Amino acid sequence: MSEGRIATLHPTVAGNLPPYSATLFDAKAAAGLTFEDIANHLERSEVACAAIFYGQATASKEDMRRLSEVLALPMNVLEKQMVGFPDRGRAGPMPPVEPLIYRLYEVVQNYGYAYKAILNEKFGDGIMSAISFSTKVEKEVDESGAAWAVITLRGKWLPFSRF
Amino acid sequence: MSEGRIATLHPTVAGNLPPYSATLFDAKAAAGLTFEDIANHLERSEVACAAIFYGQATASKEDMRRLSEVLALPMNVLEKQMVGFPDRGRAGPMPPVEPLIYRLYEVVQNYGYAYKAILNEKFGDGIMSAISFSTKVEKEVDESGAAWAVITLRGKWLPFSRF
Amino acid sequence: MSEGRIATLHPTVAGNLPPYSATLFDAKAAAGLTFEDIANHLERSEVACAAIFYGQATASKEDMRRLSEVLALPMNVLEKQMVGFPDRGRAGPMPPVEPLIYRLYEVVQNYGYAYKAILNEKFGDGIMSAISFSTKVEKEVDESGAAWAVITLRGKWLPFSRF
Amino acid sequence: MSEGRIATLHPTVAGNLPPYSATLFDAKAAAGLTFEDIANHLERSEVACAAIFYGQATASKEDMRRLSEVLALPMNVLEKQMVGFPDRGRAGPMPPVEPLIYRLYEVVQNYGYAYKAILNEKFGDGIMSAISFSTKVEKEVDESGAAWAVITLRGKWLPFSRF
Amino acid sequence: MSEGRIATLHPTVAGNLPPYSATLFDAKAAAGLTFEDIANHLERSEVACAAIFYGQATASKEDMRRLSEVLALPMNVLEKQMVGFPDRGRAGPMPPVEPLIYRLYEVVQNYGYAYKAILNEKFGDGIMSAISFSTKVEKEVDESGAAWAVITLRGKWLPFSRF
Amino acid sequence: MSEGRIATLHPTVAGNLPPYSATLFDAKAAAGLTFEDIANHLERSEVACAAIFYGQATASKEDMRRLSEVLALPMNVLEKQMVGFPDRGRAGPMPPVEPLIYRLYEVVQNYGYAYKAILNEKFGDGIMSAISFSTKVEKEVDESGAAWAVITLRGKWLPFSRF
Amino acid sequence: MSEGRIATLHPTVAGNLPPYSATLFDAKAAAGLTFEDIANHLERSEVACAAIFYGQATASKEDMRRLSEVLALPMNVLEKQMVGFPDRGRAGPMPPVEPLIYRLYEVVQNYGYAYKAILNEKFGDGIMSAISFSTKVEKEVDESGAAWAVITLRGKWLPFSRF
Amino acid sequence: MSEGRIATLHPTVAGNLPPYSATLFDAKAAAGLTFEDIANHLERSEVACAAIFYGQATASKEDMRRLSEVLALPMNVLEKQMVGFPDRGRAGPMPPVEPLIYRLYEVVQNYGYAYKAILNEKFGDGIMSAISFSTKVEKEVDESGAAWAVITLRGKWLPFSRF
Amino acid sequence: MSEGRIATLHPTVAGNLPPYSATLFDAKAAAGLTFEDIANHLERSEVACAAIFYGQATASKEDMRRLSEVLALPMNVLEKQMVGFPDRGRAGPMPPVEPLIYRLYEVVQNYGYAYKAILNEKFGDGIMSAISFSTKVEKEVDESGAAWAVITLRGKWLPFSRF
Amino acid sequence: MSEGRIATLHPTVAGNLPPYSATLFDAKAAAGLTFEDIANHLERSEVACAAIFYGQATASKEDMRRLSEVLALPMNVLEKQMVGFPDRGRAGPMPPVEPLIYRLYEVVQNYGYAYKAILNEKFGDGIMSAISFSTKVEKEVDESGAAWAVITLRGKWLPFSRF
Repeated sequence: MSEGRIATLHPTVAGNLPPYSATLFDAKAAAGLTFEDIANHLERSEVACAAIFYGQATASKEDMRRLSEVLALPMNVLEKQMVGFPDRGRAGPMPPVEPLIYRLYEVVQNYGYAYKAILNEKFGDGIMSAISFSTKVEKEVDESGAAWAVITLRGKWLPFSRF
Repeated sequence: MSEGRIATLHPTVAGNLPPYSATLFDAKAAAGLTFEDIANHLERSEVACAAIFYGQATASKEDMRRLSEVLALPMNVLEKQMVGFPDRGRAGPMPPVEPLIYRLYEVVQNYGYAYKAILNEKFGDGIMSAISFSTKVEKEVDESGAAWAVITLRGKWLPFSRF
Repeated sequence: MSEGRIATLHPTVAGNLPPYSATLFDAKAAAGLTFEDIANHLERSEVACAAIFYGQATASKEDMRRLSEVLALPMNVLEKQMVGFPDRGRAGPMPPVEPLIYRLYEVVQNYGYAYKAILNEKFGDGIMSAISFSTKVEKEVDESGAAWAVITLRGKWLPFSRF
Repeated sequence: MSEGRIATLHPTVAGNLPPYSATLFDAKAAAGLTFEDIANHLERSEVACAAIFYGQATASKEDMRRLSEVLALPMNVLEKQMVGFPDRGRAGPMPPVEPLIYRLYEVVQNYGYAYKAILNEKFGDGIMSAISFSTKVEKEVDESGAAWAVITLRGKWLPFSRF
Repeated sequence: MSEGRIATLHPTVAGNLPPYSATLFDAKAAAGLTFEDIANHLERSEVACAAIFYGQATASKEDMRRLSEVLALPMNVLEKQMVGFPDRGRAGPMPPVEPLIYRLYEVVQNYGYAYKAILNEKFGDGIMSAISFSTKVEKEVDESGAAWAVITLRGKWLPFSRF
Repeated sequence: MSEGRIATLHPTVAGNLPPYSATLFDAKAAAGLTFEDIANHLERSEVACAAIFYGQATASKEDMRRLSEVLALPMNVLEKQMVGFPDRGRAGPMPPVEPLIYRLYEVVQNYGYAYKAILNEKFGDGIMSAISFSTKVEKEVDESGAAWAVITLRGKWLPFSRF
Repeated sequence: MSEGRIATLHPTVAGNLPPYSATLFDAKAAAGLTFEDIANHLERSEVACAAIFYGQATASKEDMRRLSEVLALPMNVLEKQMVGFPDRGRAGPMPPVEPLIYRLYEVVQNYGYAYKAILNEKFGDGIMSAISFSTKVEKEVDESGAAWAVITLRGKWLPFSRF
Repeated sequence: MSEGRIATLHPTVAGNLPPYSATLFDAKAAAGLTFEDIANHLERSEVACAAIFYGQATASKEDMRRLSEVLALPMNVLEKQMVGFPDRGRAGPMPPVEPLIYRLYEVVQNYGYAYKAILNEKFGDGIMSAISFSTKVEKEVDESGAAWAVITLRGKWLPFSRF
Repeated sequence: MSEGRIATLHPTVAGNLPPYSATLFDAKAAAGLTFEDIANHLERSEVACAAIFYGQATASKEDMRRLSEVLALPMNVLEKQMVGFPDRGRAGPMPPVEPLIYRLYEVVQNYGYAYKAILNEKFGDGIMSAISFSTKVEKEVDESGAAWAVITLRGKWLPFSRF
Repeated sequence: MSEGRIATLHPTVAGNLPPYSATLFDAKAAAGLTFEDIANHLERSEVACAAIFYGQATASKEDMRRLSEVLALPMNVLEKQMVGFPDRGRAGPMPPVEPLIYRLYEVVQNYGYAYKAILNEKFGDGIMSAISFSTKVEKEVDESGAAWAVITLRGKWLPFSRF
């Protein structure tokens, strides 16, 4: 479907990310691996895996070890570059200009208050955590052969403290 | 959990919405109904139902008839107020200032490029539609008794046309 | 020190808040009560109490009952106006233009990364919750007679989920 | 808890900071020191210490001498790079996009007017200084074993002059 | 020179100010008084006096009494309207669109770093307070008969605390 | 008071200024001179002198000659670099993020309309020029030993033309 | 050409202007007068005349007397409404959204630096005043019958003061 | 008047312009030519000439030939660098921060609606073109010896099409 | 397909439009007419017709006469309300938040430079006029029964003047 | 008409695009080819072809092969640089500052709601896709010899899902 294309790192995005992003993406391109391949090797979810590449999630020592294996990168290089803590949220502009990402933003814009009303009525006054949180992407094909993307967000419910 | 509270319409939000939003929310408050109650009566999803209240989705004639029933509102009032097409996206500011809605925005900000990479590799060059699209909210309770919110986004995959 | 002044509701702020904010502030002014007086009656913290007045926190049924008592407001009026869930974050503009609030914003601007570095090193990759959270304001007078304000923020540490 | 990770300097942040920020952070990484280690050596608070690293606070000659010791950096290099006055406030964007820093911003957004009301009633018309000011970060563990972060802001109260 | 004109309250500004601003300006217009007249009666500076009218400064009980006298307004009306604390900074947009105010903004834009360099070298690391602060406006006429405006800002120097 | 510190050029500011800014600041640091020293040599005001360094004011041939002397820089280098006209206003962001500069901005924000009212009543409809303009910074020490900064702005009054 | 149309006041613009703007425009519409008609009666330029209507310029007592005559409005109403000083610059948004006004903005955007270069070389370091300033609009018809608009800006040259 | 100064290219402006801008400005500085000199050689207006230098206007082959002559630049270098079409509007920020350019912006801000009203009444519904457009700068000296700048904008009138 | 729905005027849009917009839309709703019906009666294009309703285009006297007929509105009411000139561009925010309008904005964002390159190569240096301009909307149904919208923009090519 | 000029890549645009944009544009300039030439060779539309150059559309393997041929670029270089997925929307700022692109933006600003009304009435509640979408540019010359640009947008109609 995508002619064997794999996701690469756009240079203007790279400028907002830690140096290991380029290291990882370059090695991924050289190895011709998809995130599915890499996620399988890391035994982590695909989104978490891509988030590591984009500097938006932490790789544990074990993750680094497996990245080193699957991407043929020296472990000490990864350890040195990835020693700190993620500095999140700078990958791209908000509102997003990329059409794919904009659609997700639009969902928040259009359905934000509907989500809030439903969540408040179901759980009370609080929020769905984006930290105690996981997310995944799945592909479905309907009976007509059309493809559908399914994104699931699962976050712990945090009630506002009473004080 | 929420002391029988139900979602109501904040006046500053109301100023951005069509007049029928206030009509519907007032009747909902008077009837003491949750969106779950109303969605059951309309046989539509809760989020779609709340989206109608917030002026972000179309109510069909049949939806209006059922809203008229469940909210004890005259059908002709609803028909007159709801005759047009939704003008979406103005309910609240972006970036959102409401903490609950901000968390969803933050998910897009932090994971946007990860979603794009995964979706592109799975589907090719295109987007997940936010129009040929449905969404739902579910509540899960884990073994420790903690509550989790699960939001699912399901959109048709649209490949960029070749021209 | 403040000539018996008490905090009132600025009209341009009121326009961003739920109607019960004006109800509560007007009754507070009529009764000549400070937030300390009211917080004592509610057995809640002063900041939480002021946050209720500004529509930024939920009042429980019991809170409403006590507000009704201390402010001489009919319970059914409060219950009707306060039935929904807070819609937070709209009280004033950001960046703040009020000098007192701007100083807090400036603290975040200047020390944000220092806080992050210290918190990450102490707790790992995560955030201090602003939801599982309490805050208080205290007054200290030093040996020279100068007054100092002390604001304490206490939030649960939430580590990023591994997925 | 954080696998021996220490805070490092994100390249996009570094671009907004004075050159000595990179010098200090590199030496810190090479030495494998936390800010707690360094603060102990400097006999200053951890936040002030991190603020020096981020170019948001002044290091005295004595601070430089101790930094030189603990980081194994030549004193004359530090003296030359750190001779000027801090140019504060440029480390990251506002509103913050980093989730940890955003939570602090959100506290100002949601509780700003509550703080103002309480402070005005306690102290009169004025502000809490962010200059005659100190701040600290503490870690608490509650009876259930959950970790809590406590941030304290302490500023001199400045009444508006009468003129 | 100004044909006996006096400063009045522009309606779009009034919408951002407390109700007593309109009360005071209307009474000033009815009485045909300049701020110089009123400041003399209050024994306060002209700028402080105008700042009270624009809701940017506190009027003491004694100020209110004198305003009541000079503007022929009932003291109890003033006391009731002016009981709270100023909510500053909302009178007009920033950057200013009014040419006169823009020129002051431009001075900050062009000379901001020059002021900082001079102040830092004269006083060390700190700020000139805008709270422990007074300001005045004077008129000079040079030998050629040309008029010059002189604005003086005088603020306490606050050194950054060492902590 | 400032441990012999002198103002230097922050690299992110330098990126917005002409190349001669770095030339001048480097030479100033090498010579260990304050702006007071340099201003005395140039027989110009300190603020004007700093404004030249920040590229916000023109240096005359005679100014260049004296800068060349006092900073030990070749005259022909200065003449070549400083041949053009200043391109003002880009040194830092507006609103300012530097606390010292922000305080000046805040003065404009809070007192802008008060200045306008006073100036209009004193001079008629017009503006205080920021071009036919001079400014200075002075240090005062009050009886208690506290330091005060005094900034004076003096601009020609320009009445709006009648046409 | 314009079917006898005359300029009227758009309601969203009116909301940003002083009340006398609506008074004047309503009377103009009732009288069916163009600005050319009114300017002839006032013996002022058309642009100045329209600027008075939009609250961007001062009307002298004599102007008010003539406006009163030509628009059949009571002099005392005009005197009362027009007693203050203009608060300029709020009529419309910037960047302008009106195509006609946007074209002027675009001229500044595209030719701004070209104007600066030419003016600096002709006059030295300074600005063209927008206060000691007049402007006019003329219509030309070329040999092919096409119409051309000519806008002339004439401002006093103000050199930057040396201090 | 300007001590033989000529307009040069500010480095932060240069970063927004095509490479030939630096080429042309460097050659202009080396040759010590004003735009008046160059415009005479090109037989084009001064503003158009400066606009070419700033990448805001097209140079014809003949213009390039003459630029090559007057600036002693190889024709083939100019032809190669100047082969494309201008990408206008990026030279500086809007709103302008340069005082000279800001004054022009302020004219649009203050007189925009006045121009629109006059133009609409004179020409009907349409715009003054900024494309079928020319502009010039002139210097006048009044009887008192004061200098005035006169900027003329002349654009074709385009009526909105009826469809 | 749309259950006989017709386009109506959203109240938040109405607040940005002239009063006749509400007059026309109310009459349209009362008469149950589509823009196609009205355009047929006016013998104008549908988009122009809707643009008149939204205050973005001029109605001629003849247009008003026909609107009066088809909408059963008194001619003198229309003539009085519609006497002025359109004040365009304020109907909704930019970037658009309405998904349908956003898609058009996205086309400009993504293909803007491609259009420019093609147009420059085909026509030279200039622009496609949005004033000497017409536009239309058509519906196509492909062989699979799917509906396609076709929007055509046709504007006069305006070359930049040489001066 | 355009003196044999061809579209080239402006350096500030290039900084926002993938490296292959510069590769392609440089080869195009070297070969002296227009997009029409290249589009003919690729058997794709001109706009799609330019969109590939600007990194806004995907080139298939076959497209790369033909680009390699027509631009005399090694196939393996193109394959390596163009392996990823487009990251759209960053080519230029929004609102556009380039006059040609601004005109298209202005069409959306002025006619956006008119398009929405017409499309909603013709198709129901939904959007015109910008993904299942094609677009083209044509040149027309009218009887008077004047040139007109015609841009056609054709997108699939997507009705909002009912859920």
